[in-house]
Amino acid sequence: MDYRARQKRLLLALQPIALRGLLITHMPNVRYLCGFTGSAGVLAVALPKSGSARIAFFSDGRYTTQAREQVVGAKVEVSQTASIIAAGEWLKRTAPGTAVGFEADRMTVSAFQQLRKQSRLKLKPTSMLVEGLRMIKEVDEVRTIRSAVLLASSVFENVLGDIKPGMSEQALAAQIEYLCRRLGAEGMSFDTLVSSGLRSALPHGVASAYAMPRKGFVIMDFGVIVSGYCSDMTRTVHLGAPDSAARKMYGAVLQAQLTAIQSVRAGVETAEVDFAARNVLNKAGLGKYFTHSTGHGVGLEIHEPPGLRKAGDGKKGKREKPERLQTGMVITIEPGAYVPGRGGVRIEDMVLVTESGCEVLTPTRKDLIVL
Amino acid sequence: MDYRARQKRLLLALQPIALRGLLITHMPNVRYLCGFTGSAGVLAVALPKSGSARIAFFSDGRYTTQAREQVVGAKVEVSQTASIIAAGEWLKRTAPGTAVGFEADRMTVSAFQQLRKQSRLKLKPTSMLVEGLRMIKEVDEVRTIRSAVLLASSVFENVLGDIKPGMSEQALAAQIEYLCRRLGAEGMSFDTLVSSGLRSALPHGVASAYAMPRKGFVIMDFGVIVSGYCSDMTRTVHLGAPDSAARKMYGAVLQAQLTAIQSVRAGVETAEVDFAARNVLNKAGLGKYFTHSTGHGVGLEIHEPPGLRKAGDGKKGKREKPERLQTGMVITIEPGAYVPGRGGVRIEDMVLVTESGCEVLTPTRKDLIVL
Repeated sequence: MDYRARQKRLLLALQPIALRGLLITHMPNVRYLCGFTGSAGVLAVALPKSGSARIAFFSDGRYTTQAREQVVGAKVEVSQTASIIAAGEWLKRTAPGTAVGFEADRMTVSAFQQLRKQSRLKLKPTSMLVEGLRMIKEVDEVRTIRSAVLLASSVFENVLGDIKPGMSEQALAAQIEYLCRRLGAEGMSFDTLVSSGLRSALPHGVASAYAMPRKGFVIMDFGVIVSGYCSDMTRTVHLGAPDSAARKMYGAVLQAQLTAIQSVRAGVETAEVDFAARNVLNKAGLGKYFTHSTGHGVGLEIHEPPGLRKAGDGKKGKREKPERLQTGMVITIEPGAYVPGRGGVRIEDMVLVTESGCEVLTPTRKDLIVL
Repeated sequence: MDYRARQKRLLLALQPIALRGLLITHMPNVRYLCGFTGSAGVLAVALPKSGSARIAFFSDGRYTTQAREQVVGAKVEVSQTASIIAAGEWLKRTAPGTAVGFEADRMTVSAFQQLRKQSRLKLKPTSMLVEGLRMIKEVDEVRTIRSAVLLASSVFENVLGDIKPGMSEQALAAQIEYLCRRLGAEGMSFDTLVSSGLRSALPHGVASAYAMPRKGFVIMDFGVIVSGYCSDMTRTVHLGAPDSAARKMYGAVLQAQLTAIQSVRAGVETAEVDFAARNVLNKAGLGKYFTHSTGHGVGLEIHEPPGLRKAGDGKKGKREKPERLQTGMVITIEPGAYVPGRGGVRIEDMVLVTESGCEVLTPTRKDLIVL
């Protein structure tokens, strides 16, 4: 990955907001900018009034070796004091007298108060600065994501033969995760969700000790991490012969998913993609059972911007102006329907947004698989 | 679990700080107080000037069914607006005109600013209120933790036969996690760490594609989740015949671990336990290679208070007065030594603090296992 190019893009992004100092504390952002993969550290960016930009990385004794090996384009400082305080001190020396931005969506109120008190820095909240850069994936990132997606897809194919009535959801989740690891996943991008029968009506069904029934849907939602990058996929299969209501529900969700994918293109509003899926489910009488958003960005984190939500449904009311898809975004498309007392269906692919449409990265079939 | 008793203890804890309203946003705290296991929701506690205390739980459409099934001792409210805003509005109606506490160690600056702006509540930072209650485990919690510990220990015994030179660290991690899942773990309490040979000198060695060598240490650090509660254990084995330096290092770390366990007793300062371990390693000339703290609390989260750190080594400088162990705390004791270019050793048990000492919960042997 070209960390120096990312640092340059960040410096450009700082210009319009007139910040001469920035503290990066969110670890995926730190990793994105300098390559450090550990769990604790702070990246500080200084733009002194005279002289060129300087970047330093601060961590503690646990990470001395790792930081020196991994960090690119930033001076490595290992300190006895808390990294955030050491970084604040450095900024005061390097770009004195200027306001310093911090990641307000990530820093807790306590950490903020502590930093303000100990460093006496003039702190300015920033939002989604690095996340904004991360939304647009580089060629190397897409390549890495693609390998994560393919690994998970191959596990789905492999695990199909194991799914049987009476097997617990947890045992199936264990099998999925084991195969992912054996194929080289560094880890799972989240705890594998398996929900079957009536439990499939829980939109966020954690795999339980529940034995899968003779007849009913089985939703599997899982993803892997490869070289730091996440994948995310959901497939729903049916144990036993589905009745016509089950077939209809599956068909409607699939139609919603395909329609949403059709609507993806650079320049389109994210809410339009959500609407494309929601509209199909509304028409099928399943709209009120589609209780989550249509998708989200994926990269170093399993949930990244952009969110593909209903218009006016911005998280915490933050997003006012519509967000538009851009070439190079990697997003999920994952409508679902969850009918209490009957069951649920979700189908999820990852897609790469292009100028003229999108490329579906997930190669796995989507017709209703009956086991 | 007796959620109502916990809620009563929380109400008692609110009295000395004169708070008539509290917003709980940290999900393990929410779970602890009302039993909700989902990933999004807010618990609000109101102590109106007249009338009795009221507690309400706020979540969104995804969790309607689950919240109604799980939540104990609190009214369930499902709202279209963000849960935190809905909870704030409810507090304004239920305990009007009073300051409202929030979890400053958990809430981000952005969320805080949003809440303050939209709700116009008078917000007061609180720290470790619910975490303080959670430090002392109830009988049912200890029983649950014990089953998690035993499950993980049995997996360690089972996996020993699989460890061979040439096997990748990731494959061993996969095997460990698979066995945990098959034995009924809901999940792992963190990504399994496996580091071997020279990589064992990385104190936080993520399992890699590295093939385990013919000769050298293999550190395995893993834990499971059972009914929401975490376990945590580390064992270090040796592939091939250890030389005398390796035996000496293992012996010193084991001695440090046993000495620290000996020092555990209700009333003892956490820093004393850390010192007990550190002192042994200092004397063995390994002090500077012990680059982390001696242990931490474990419960609904894998890292909970108390921390067993060096005196004056408080995280972010927050802890000024010494923290003392109390009966019913469950903590890890996990000293280690990591010598770059040679390798590392860590040995970790979970122990239950009692009035007269402690009970070691982890039953696994600690003599040097040579494979």
